[in-house]
Amino acid sequence: MQPFMDENFLLKTETARKLYHEAAKKMPIIDYHCHLSPKEIAENVQFRDITHLMLGGDHYKWRAMLSYGIPEELIRGDGDPKEKFTAYADTVAHAIGNPLYHWTHLELQRVFGIFTPLNKETAGEIYEKASAMLQQEDFRAQKLIDKFNVDYLCTTDDPADDLSYHKTIAAQGTLKAKVLPTFRPDKAVNVDKAGFADYIQNLSRAAGMEIKSTADVLTALERRVEYFHACGCRISDHGMDTVPWGEPSFKQADKAFQAAMNGEEMKQKHIDSYRTVLLAGLGAMYAQRGWTQQYHMGAMRNNNTAMFRRYGPDVGFDSVLDNAVAYNLSRLMDLQETQGQLPKTILYCLNPGANYAIGTMLGNFQQSGIKGKIQMGSGWWFVDQKDGMEEQMRTLGNLGVLGTFVGMLTDSRSFISYPRHEYFRRIMCNLIGQWVEDGEYPNDEAFLKKLVEDISYNNAKNYFGI
Amino acid sequence: MQPFMDENFLLKTETARKLYHEAAKKMPIIDYHCHLSPKEIAENVQFRDITHLMLGGDHYKWRAMLSYGIPEELIRGDGDPKEKFTAYADTVAHAIGNPLYHWTHLELQRVFGIFTPLNKETAGEIYEKASAMLQQEDFRAQKLIDKFNVDYLCTTDDPADDLSYHKTIAAQGTLKAKVLPTFRPDKAVNVDKAGFADYIQNLSRAAGMEIKSTADVLTALERRVEYFHACGCRISDHGMDTVPWGEPSFKQADKAFQAAMNGEEMKQKHIDSYRTVLLAGLGAMYAQRGWTQQYHMGAMRNNNTAMFRRYGPDVGFDSVLDNAVAYNLSRLMDLQETQGQLPKTILYCLNPGANYAIGTMLGNFQQSGIKGKIQMGSGWWFVDQKDGMEEQMRTLGNLGVLGTFVGMLTDSRSFISYPRHEYFRRIMCNLIGQWVEDGEYPNDEAFLKKLVEDISYNNAKNYFGI
Amino acid sequence: MQPFMDENFLLKTETARKLYHEAAKKMPIIDYHCHLSPKEIAENVQFRDITHLMLGGDHYKWRAMLSYGIPEELIRGDGDPKEKFTAYADTVAHAIGNPLYHWTHLELQRVFGIFTPLNKETAGEIYEKASAMLQQEDFRAQKLIDKFNVDYLCTTDDPADDLSYHKTIAAQGTLKAKVLPTFRPDKAVNVDKAGFADYIQNLSRAAGMEIKSTADVLTALERRVEYFHACGCRISDHGMDTVPWGEPSFKQADKAFQAAMNGEEMKQKHIDSYRTVLLAGLGAMYAQRGWTQQYHMGAMRNNNTAMFRRYGPDVGFDSVLDNAVAYNLSRLMDLQETQGQLPKTILYCLNPGANYAIGTMLGNFQQSGIKGKIQMGSGWWFVDQKDGMEEQMRTLGNLGVLGTFVGMLTDSRSFISYPRHEYFRRIMCNLIGQWVEDGEYPNDEAFLKKLVEDISYNNAKNYFGI
Repeated sequence: MQPFMDENFLLKTETARKLYHEAAKKMPIIDYHCHLSPKEIAENVQFRDITHLMLGGDHYKWRAMLSYGIPEELIRGDGDPKEKFTAYADTVAHAIGNPLYHWTHLELQRVFGIFTPLNKETAGEIYEKASAMLQQEDFRAQKLIDKFNVDYLCTTDDPADDLSYHKTIAAQGTLKAKVLPTFRPDKAVNVDKAGFADYIQNLSRAAGMEIKSTADVLTALERRVEYFHACGCRISDHGMDTVPWGEPSFKQADKAFQAAMNGEEMKQKHIDSYRTVLLAGLGAMYAQRGWTQQYHMGAMRNNNTAMFRRYGPDVGFDSVLDNAVAYNLSRLMDLQETQGQLPKTILYCLNPGANYAIGTMLGNFQQSGIKGKIQMGSGWWFVDQKDGMEEQMRTLGNLGVLGTFVGMLTDSRSFISYPRHEYFRRIMCNLIGQWVEDGEYPNDEAFLKKLVEDISYNNAKNYFGI
Repeated sequence: MQPFMDENFLLKTETARKLYHEAAKKMPIIDYHCHLSPKEIAENVQFRDITHLMLGGDHYKWRAMLSYGIPEELIRGDGDPKEKFTAYADTVAHAIGNPLYHWTHLELQRVFGIFTPLNKETAGEIYEKASAMLQQEDFRAQKLIDKFNVDYLCTTDDPADDLSYHKTIAAQGTLKAKVLPTFRPDKAVNVDKAGFADYIQNLSRAAGMEIKSTADVLTALERRVEYFHACGCRISDHGMDTVPWGEPSFKQADKAFQAAMNGEEMKQKHIDSYRTVLLAGLGAMYAQRGWTQQYHMGAMRNNNTAMFRRYGPDVGFDSVLDNAVAYNLSRLMDLQETQGQLPKTILYCLNPGANYAIGTMLGNFQQSGIKGKIQMGSGWWFVDQKDGMEEQMRTLGNLGVLGTFVGMLTDSRSFISYPRHEYFRRIMCNLIGQWVEDGEYPNDEAFLKKLVEDISYNNAKNYFGI
Repeated sequence: MQPFMDENFLLKTETARKLYHEAAKKMPIIDYHCHLSPKEIAENVQFRDITHLMLGGDHYKWRAMLSYGIPEELIRGDGDPKEKFTAYADTVAHAIGNPLYHWTHLELQRVFGIFTPLNKETAGEIYEKASAMLQQEDFRAQKLIDKFNVDYLCTTDDPADDLSYHKTIAAQGTLKAKVLPTFRPDKAVNVDKAGFADYIQNLSRAAGMEIKSTADVLTALERRVEYFHACGCRISDHGMDTVPWGEPSFKQADKAFQAAMNGEEMKQKHIDSYRTVLLAGLGAMYAQRGWTQQYHMGAMRNNNTAMFRRYGPDVGFDSVLDNAVAYNLSRLMDLQETQGQLPKTILYCLNPGANYAIGTMLGNFQQSGIKGKIQMGSGWWFVDQKDGMEEQMRTLGNLGVLGTFVGMLTDSRSFISYPRHEYFRRIMCNLIGQWVEDGEYPNDEAFLKKLVEDISYNNAKNYFGI
């Protein structure tokens, strides 16, 4: 029996251990997609207690707690912090097989040096010990990030954002990690969602121009792309629960745009045209500047209307959409490619049932001169766990060139989620190590160490050009 | 090499063996969903021979035999029982990797004490030995059930059924297991299927009221819910090959209802409204009474028209439907939740490609105060096998709180299918044991034994409130 | 650690090794579906160098090279052969986990006796050594085939083809393997694709009759079926990216046919009718002659328009379509079955997410007197790798009777892809051996050896009646 989560956690073979401890472990982190708050980084927030830090904004944990029947006041409500932590401890102890179990213990180990398994009996002691440590300067937000050898972290930002906190952080010069913005124009693309017309006013102000048509939206967005580029942005992100495909016609697109601005009903085909025109137009802007675009597909959000009314979005009521994605995605990418302007693209699909559709889509649009121009994103959200990550790497391995993979990102709202990079690297080294141990790949130690270092760090560094 | 199907069958590690033999094994069985005939239980049927018992009504086995090219007279026909059994033996010996192989041998071992591997050479001897045993009183239907330490078994019953056999069984007092009915109103929901109008007449008689509208259908069903409740029923079941979602309007629903009653064509959107209104209305009835509803989704039935004409339904010609389920299911459950009346719900989808859509759907509708209010059902029908069950538990583990799982059910028409609970428990203990052996979960023996006992029995007992 | 790709490659247990080395290994090959050029076989082509042989027409390898960012001139262009081979070597060394890695090394080992791992350092030496060997008579096309103990190979041919090369090959009498044609009438079925009207002219000439209606198309095709049958053909093949289902009406079908012949727009429902009528009509022809039909479903082709314009089809820009397949496929097969004329059928779906839909579809249409009349095809194209093949066999094992499986085919355009049969047999023996080692199946050596011999060769021989 292996000891519980010791230094060889998830590393089942000698080769896996060698690859992790002698190669992957030492590489810095490029966290190229996360949801940390630039404001909280700039303010170098201090956490009141471990509940504030661990449970303050983590909808993964809230969701597990509700699944375990915990009262709402101890989840999203204003219950006592220690009671909340104890309720979470009891939940996670019963969540055997859930990544929260490993994430939580890696966080306790790496941030606080606490190696006691968490459960309702141990929760009180752990709460006190960790909360006391959080009172120290060394446990404020920026120090937490720096503990993990982070080179870059890319936040997720609206095109209308002035990025003032990014400037503040850079001016402070206290954080070792570089904090770069990411351009996420969902609100400008989702012509059919509530709030579109209001958002267009925001965008108009930010871009300093009137917006009266689809073409104007793109012009305004390009101004913001320029601004973001000047602020160091090299990556965009698109949340697209379904992938749109419609006639790429500005005239058709304008029918949806005008309807949305006037609060009128719109036809699905006009929505599809608008979204297609926007995504193709944005892709061209990204391509011209050497940016990478990310497509996050297959999430179905805010399924529980009562909870949405009570708490708003991103609080734990989202799930996997299992609609087909391949046809529309192929057409949308081909439109960009045909125009000569498909940028580097990372495809994430929340539905692992689409792994082969996504994993083979890459090959349709690769390009000479760029290693892995089209990437299959690492296991995302619900799939961001041992089975999901291993399956993603097996899929990419079988269908593409695994050696070009840009690897892990946290996609997280938490300041202490960086051990997920460690988690990924252990799983990756274990998978590759197993292939070698099984005689499926030669035991060329130098080559293999380079390979895992590349997937851990170098590939991302080269790919994003940061 | 492990011996063939000995006491440590499927238990690969010491921890797995300890968990199974010292904890899971001793727990009684709650078989909360099956298709046993209350009439046959009440009549305490005696089986002529092992062919009658094993092959008399088992479409899983018939299907395998046809796949192996066996003549129809030895499958569903009136061939010689011993020849039939030999044909099945030859089939199953070639069905390596099929759950029938393990189920059959577990049945021979546990019911008859026969440990010889079954094949066409051994079939004759096994036939004689087992058939002789079946002549004893100890091998009649009720004794077979009692052999397996069954606490509860829930049959599947039509709302129009008078449940007289359930009353008879209770009055006999000879069976240790309690036999409870399950409310399955498919015929009232499927307005578009042949026989609907006739069925409404049956329901009308059973409910003692005229039925002239969708609202009347619901009123009549509520009378039957009351009756079932009084007879101990706490669970309903819905077979819904596709999940409906339509405008929840009685007016629209009535258009489908009236068309069906008059034998006229109906529009899909009216069918969808009718089914939506019915399911939401039934959900409210269940919620008010603390019942659990089961949704069985993704089966495509009676694919072979010639065989359907010859034999009717449920004889081995059904398969997996791979249509998307998430969107409609989310809307249907949210409708119930928004009305404050989503009952406890177990979701089964026959398509394992939808595992992540289902596994994440749970979290959208969980509720404080109930551990695992929304459940992902154990591997169903074609997925009810080692790979499928393990995958279901890994999925639930990754996406929810495995410790709240209500575990196994047989869904069977056979009096000797209870070893499938043993099969499930072995697989569950092996999975959990492996995590512990790999250092992924602490070796806390008392906690782990409680966990496997809960999944084997306690969780179901608490969840169903029986 | 196991040595890299030695004699026990992929065989992890003693039982697996015994089954492979003492049973599977010796069986001849029936390659019942491939894309070898009959002309190149007839001409007994000699290869200029290993680049010509390995990279001359292999879109799998081209695709990997582009994914690795290799310049187009070294992929599909006219770059230096040695540079091309080196670029491929560098690519494949980074494609850890990709079947190309194993295929390539099996080819180097079995064809050339080269056991050095391929990478950019070793590429030059391997290029020279292998290219020198290719100058020998023993390495011309026919000798390459004969090296691998091939009994039959079935090419893929258009109904309008005169099969003259097949006659030439037979007349030569120099090749030990029998080369049979396969009837692939896609161009006659795809009424909605460019070139249909021209194709009908070709078919008209080949069949020696005018074609003025859907019925005429079927009559012309039946003449060609007769001709192919006389030339030894016993297998047909259908590429159907989506499975059609429409009203099986000649009148409706003719609307699509006439529109296509006149270059007019056509309605989707008429296309569906035409394709349905054609497939049902062809199925009847096959059934009457004891042929087997193959359905290849779920590919989305020519996704990259720019590359399609530059190079045409089948050059590496295809991917997996994730649309639902079960409903239409069920209806199409039932139509044939109801007419009493569903032929033996092999179902391949490129989307492994449809594995359970396919694996359970088989059982709907099996038939007494034929072992495994409806087959689930071995892992196809992107799924033709270790994980995919193992998953296909587990799926078939769980859902059907694995002992009736007709096993492996190459689906290849290469003269040296036969080691993929070895690859398959190793994986199959390892899977079965593991079940035995784990105590899940009895260690009945004679039975198990027969089983793996059957899946390797005998089942295909009996099934196809060749």
